[in-house]
Amino acid sequence: MGNDTLIEQAAQPAALPPTPLTIEGASVLHQMLRIRWAAWRTLTKERQAELMAQAAPVLEEIEKAGSAVFSLLGHKGDLMLVHFRPDFVQLNRVELRLATLGLWDYLETTTSYLSVVELGLYDSTVKEWSRLAAQGVQPHSEEWNREVAAILSRQREAMASRLYPEIPDRKYICFYPMDRRRGEAKNWYQVPMNERQRLMREHGMVGRRYADDVKQIITGSIGFDDWEWGVDLFANDALVFKKLIYDMRFDEVSAVYALFGSFYVGVRVPAAGLGDLLAGRLPA
Amino acid sequence: MGNDTLIEQAAQPAALPPTPLTIEGASVLHQMLRIRWAAWRTLTKERQAELMAQAAPVLEEIEKAGSAVFSLLGHKGDLMLVHFRPDFVQLNRVELRLATLGLWDYLETTTSYLSVVELGLYDSTVKEWSRLAAQGVQPHSEEWNREVAAILSRQREAMASRLYPEIPDRKYICFYPMDRRRGEAKNWYQVPMNERQRLMREHGMVGRRYADDVKQIITGSIGFDDWEWGVDLFANDALVFKKLIYDMRFDEVSAVYALFGSFYVGVRVPAAGLGDLLAGRLPA
Amino acid sequence: MGNDTLIEQAAQPAALPPTPLTIEGASVLHQMLRIRWAAWRTLTKERQAELMAQAAPVLEEIEKAGSAVFSLLGHKGDLMLVHFRPDFVQLNRVELRLATLGLWDYLETTTSYLSVVELGLYDSTVKEWSRLAAQGVQPHSEEWNREVAAILSRQREAMASRLYPEIPDRKYICFYPMDRRRGEAKNWYQVPMNERQRLMREHGMVGRRYADDVKQIITGSIGFDDWEWGVDLFANDALVFKKLIYDMRFDEVSAVYALFGSFYVGVRVPAAGLGDLLAGRLPA
Amino acid sequence: MGNDTLIEQAAQPAALPPTPLTIEGASVLHQMLRIRWAAWRTLTKERQAELMAQAAPVLEEIEKAGSAVFSLLGHKGDLMLVHFRPDFVQLNRVELRLATLGLWDYLETTTSYLSVVELGLYDSTVKEWSRLAAQGVQPHSEEWNREVAAILSRQREAMASRLYPEIPDRKYICFYPMDRRRGEAKNWYQVPMNERQRLMREHGMVGRRYADDVKQIITGSIGFDDWEWGVDLFANDALVFKKLIYDMRFDEVSAVYALFGSFYVGVRVPAAGLGDLLAGRLPA
Amino acid sequence: MGNDTLIEQAAQPAALPPTPLTIEGASVLHQMLRIRWAAWRTLTKERQAELMAQAAPVLEEIEKAGSAVFSLLGHKGDLMLVHFRPDFVQLNRVELRLATLGLWDYLETTTSYLSVVELGLYDSTVKEWSRLAAQGVQPHSEEWNREVAAILSRQREAMASRLYPEIPDRKYICFYPMDRRRGEAKNWYQVPMNERQRLMREHGMVGRRYADDVKQIITGSIGFDDWEWGVDLFANDALVFKKLIYDMRFDEVSAVYALFGSFYVGVRVPAAGLGDLLAGRLPA
Repeated sequence: MGNDTLIEQAAQPAALPPTPLTIEGASVLHQMLRIRWAAWRTLTKERQAELMAQAAPVLEEIEKAGSAVFSLLGHKGDLMLVHFRPDFVQLNRVELRLATLGLWDYLETTTSYLSVVELGLYDSTVKEWSRLAAQGVQPHSEEWNREVAAILSRQREAMASRLYPEIPDRKYICFYPMDRRRGEAKNWYQVPMNERQRLMREHGMVGRRYADDVKQIITGSIGFDDWEWGVDLFANDALVFKKLIYDMRFDEVSAVYALFGSFYVGVRVPAAGLGDLLAGRLPA
Repeated sequence: MGNDTLIEQAAQPAALPPTPLTIEGASVLHQMLRIRWAAWRTLTKERQAELMAQAAPVLEEIEKAGSAVFSLLGHKGDLMLVHFRPDFVQLNRVELRLATLGLWDYLETTTSYLSVVELGLYDSTVKEWSRLAAQGVQPHSEEWNREVAAILSRQREAMASRLYPEIPDRKYICFYPMDRRRGEAKNWYQVPMNERQRLMREHGMVGRRYADDVKQIITGSIGFDDWEWGVDLFANDALVFKKLIYDMRFDEVSAVYALFGSFYVGVRVPAAGLGDLLAGRLPA
Repeated sequence: MGNDTLIEQAAQPAALPPTPLTIEGASVLHQMLRIRWAAWRTLTKERQAELMAQAAPVLEEIEKAGSAVFSLLGHKGDLMLVHFRPDFVQLNRVELRLATLGLWDYLETTTSYLSVVELGLYDSTVKEWSRLAAQGVQPHSEEWNREVAAILSRQREAMASRLYPEIPDRKYICFYPMDRRRGEAKNWYQVPMNERQRLMREHGMVGRRYADDVKQIITGSIGFDDWEWGVDLFANDALVFKKLIYDMRFDEVSAVYALFGSFYVGVRVPAAGLGDLLAGRLPA
Repeated sequence: MGNDTLIEQAAQPAALPPTPLTIEGASVLHQMLRIRWAAWRTLTKERQAELMAQAAPVLEEIEKAGSAVFSLLGHKGDLMLVHFRPDFVQLNRVELRLATLGLWDYLETTTSYLSVVELGLYDSTVKEWSRLAAQGVQPHSEEWNREVAAILSRQREAMASRLYPEIPDRKYICFYPMDRRRGEAKNWYQVPMNERQRLMREHGMVGRRYADDVKQIITGSIGFDDWEWGVDLFANDALVFKKLIYDMRFDEVSAVYALFGSFYVGVRVPAAGLGDLLAGRLPA
Repeated sequence: MGNDTLIEQAAQPAALPPTPLTIEGASVLHQMLRIRWAAWRTLTKERQAELMAQAAPVLEEIEKAGSAVFSLLGHKGDLMLVHFRPDFVQLNRVELRLATLGLWDYLETTTSYLSVVELGLYDSTVKEWSRLAAQGVQPHSEEWNREVAAILSRQREAMASRLYPEIPDRKYICFYPMDRRRGEAKNWYQVPMNERQRLMREHGMVGRRYADDVKQIITGSIGFDDWEWGVDLFANDALVFKKLIYDMRFDEVSAVYALFGSFYVGVRVPAAGLGDLLAGRLPA
């Protein structure tokens, strides 16, 4: 395929950049935490209440500022906190703020994920690249850069609510990180732009069939964490996660080019319900 | 193969969906636990009895509600708890309930597995897809969706006892997770539906030869955990696990497309026997 | 190769089963343990003696029942216990018995391996399959099953001493688990039976050259643990392990199809010598 | 490709060395640390102040000598210390000095990375190799060695400020290790020199487009740590890391030959701000 | 390549063994240790001195018997002890002796490596195999075995000082384990003997260019530890490790067939300097 790809690329206007346009929004941190049940149980009810009372206003505040709490299933953690913030400094501040709570002595971080909300613009890219090429605008020339900046700016405005989303109010969350394969024979980063556009469009059509049942937020993590993208799905029926992802697994782009990390499934819990959870009760 | 597959797919009625129909039942959590022997031994007999007395009614209750206890062999854990429940919220409640027992200070979770009972309907899929195609019903059209919903509903009813199974009453359990390979050259998710049906049928015929000796429960975990399926085998003679799995390993579908995770083997123990186990005695 | 293999299989009498006959004997558990030296050193000589006195009769008893103790080299553990027993319930009982010793507070399990003694009968399989095929006996028919049961029964009787072996009385042990490769291009489970027989015979001929210097016990662990086989070698000169395994690595079956796990090398120690070991002295 | 490569190599002047010239500068150690928040919180404010007072002059001194502190995002660590020093002995001294601070009881190393600043001279190599070949100077002859030593010496002088760089004064750092692929089909170390030069030049041109926004320091770690190179990026806008690395991922050299380790992203903190950080405040 | 290799092997005198002759010398154990700084700091100066006084004669004795101490860089450990001994029993005795020192409470083993000094005799093998073949001596016949024993015995005598080497007195050590690749397409163990001899000779010629600057000890670990070989390099300038290994990485045998484990770099410290190190000072 390596050679074919080269030939196809040669057949394109030589200098068209291979990287699709993307726009970015909120910075996002997923924190997976284990409750230190044995240590927590050694505390008196009074001390537990004291720690919860100290934590409550902080939790409420971060929830208002774009964080959510989930009760995780299985051994990968008991809690997952998902934080949406304007930038990494704000995320780091949330981390530090939580770490200084007395309650934090009874939680331990098992893993985490750092990323930013990302919208990939394959369709716009192909359309705009073609237009600029037709106008003879040289890639990476000043004019090109100006045009690209304008396109991105327009898109950011139009997509603002998707770039800085509310955390969808559904019962269940499913989070997992993923990569595009860079294998010796099958390599996403060597597939021509038009072909990638086609594959992503097909992929999007599967997703659209589930639009009523699942809300999806894609975040990009190239340069930030150990996989290239993070996927958050939100639904009231957890079975939908399985149906959607199984369906997508037969898409050509997923079948051939998708590699998956660990899956985390949790039940949404209001921040105010954390005390219940630490008492062994899942808030209604 | 990539190209051949595309050609074969092109030769099929273009839009037939590649995803087989599945029906789902009970939500299942496997919890692998290590006994903190040294800490347990520091307790007086009275304190041990007290903790067991507190735990006993909870264990009995969850056993009645669809859980079972196994004494694991080897270092991967001393205990495995397997919970069958109607949904993930119920599973999360079991986890929280157990975590708040005093006895839980003397157990630590080493790993877990989250999945739902799944029956894959390759034969029905091929039959029904063909029928709908012959009738000119467009995939994912309203009529198609209505028909599929009806098929699944009939199947769920007919298979109710397999979707919500009793935990088979055998001496030994063998649990392992598995994936279908998505390699650069051999990729299950690019094999045409008819071929997958044929391979799964062959695979099923091996299993049928062991039907008297082994009870099998397949659970699906795409979107829920780090492998695609979980397999639970139950038998009175542990050697049968080896014979069955070795036989299957030569099946084309397993030989080429099956990837296996860790294997867990345990001896069934009544929940009421946990005190014996913690005293170093395997209940009869 | 995939296609060639299919052609070759088609050229064989179609329905001959691909799985070689095996016979099984003792159930085997390897336990690798680390000594908690710092904790042990905090004990008075009297307390240490007390714990050893409590453990001594149990260790002696399990040694008589088919267990052996080895002092491991390197960080993977300080001790390896190898237990041969009639079945998994007996192995589980040994584990529980040891875990309840006070001495166990000063040992921690780093890993383990669960398997059963296995003899693979490639030569008999090919001979008997051919005979039954010549007689027109259908694979998996009642007659076939009866014949196979008779063959296995005769072999089990003839091989009884190898199926339930004494632990060879040599100075050193070398243990490692292994798999047969199931790669995209090279896949043991797709190699025709006759070819596998030829490769295993060649492999056996290398082993035979070392028969005087090394005793070997092969155990099968498909369905029981995370690799397919375990290999135990016993010798008075540890260099022989390296020579034998290096020689075999050039065998076609090993070169192409063998994948190896971790290697564990230890010095045999009588159970009665464990007190010496905990005092920092290797028993003579 | 293996064969083609051999043919191409045969077409080159046979004995030209395949290894590009490199020049090396500062020795670099990255230390990733977790703050032991629970233990730190058990201390009185006075004891915390005492420990910070003891650590302050040491931190200030190492900062002046070429170290920098970053507040990491996510679970991989809370802090990253980056040390630039003249040699490994100096780095080892920094490690030992820090390890003997009382404050170190409240930090634990999660991982680290050891490397030296490296500039790869593909363009010079091809030019000088050709010149020496044209002059008939035999590779590795005395004359050749003398010439090479002279070239390297000139380059080291010209590049001194890049070999012993100041740590760029930007808000964010992004660190990750990487390898060149040595796959069965795609193997960087079998690509002819001219082709590698072309690929690296293309790669460099992408980087140049980001020169205003990102400062980059490449360190080599072959023989020193578990990946071949380390990359440090410094920017005031963290999004630039993602854009640069995503753009590069489509470069032929990265698409085909780059393998990446873990990514670490942090916010620059003055050494004098460590006390603030331990109090849960990110210094402005 | 599989097929070509078979053809080439068929073209050789059929029965010539594929395994090269090797001779073995000292048994070697590498122990990587972390200093438990926090625990050590809790001790009074008097208690620290007491523990060092107890350890000093043991350390001095083992140093005289063929052990050396290195201060490691990075998180993989603070210390590396390298022990050369006549056999594994002696190595096990060193381990036990050290483990019973009170000082050992303040050290923890992070990893280790077990191997024996090995000289691979590719050139002699090809020469002697050819001679014996020409004389019609059958491989593995009694005469063949006698001849081989004689060859090995002569080589062992001639190479005695390299088989039982002094630990080179250089400032820095670099240790790493490695494998020969057994890939599906590129498999060292299927390369014909003559070709392996040629590749190893080429490889050796690169090493020879560094003979003045680096001392190298190769140890074999097939059957003993998880990689096939260990490499120890000793030099006064640590940069030489990088240059040598980078140069070798372009060798055909390394480029195609070498797989590397973790790299450990340390500074030599006299055993008598361990007290200084624990006080945070690198001995001069």
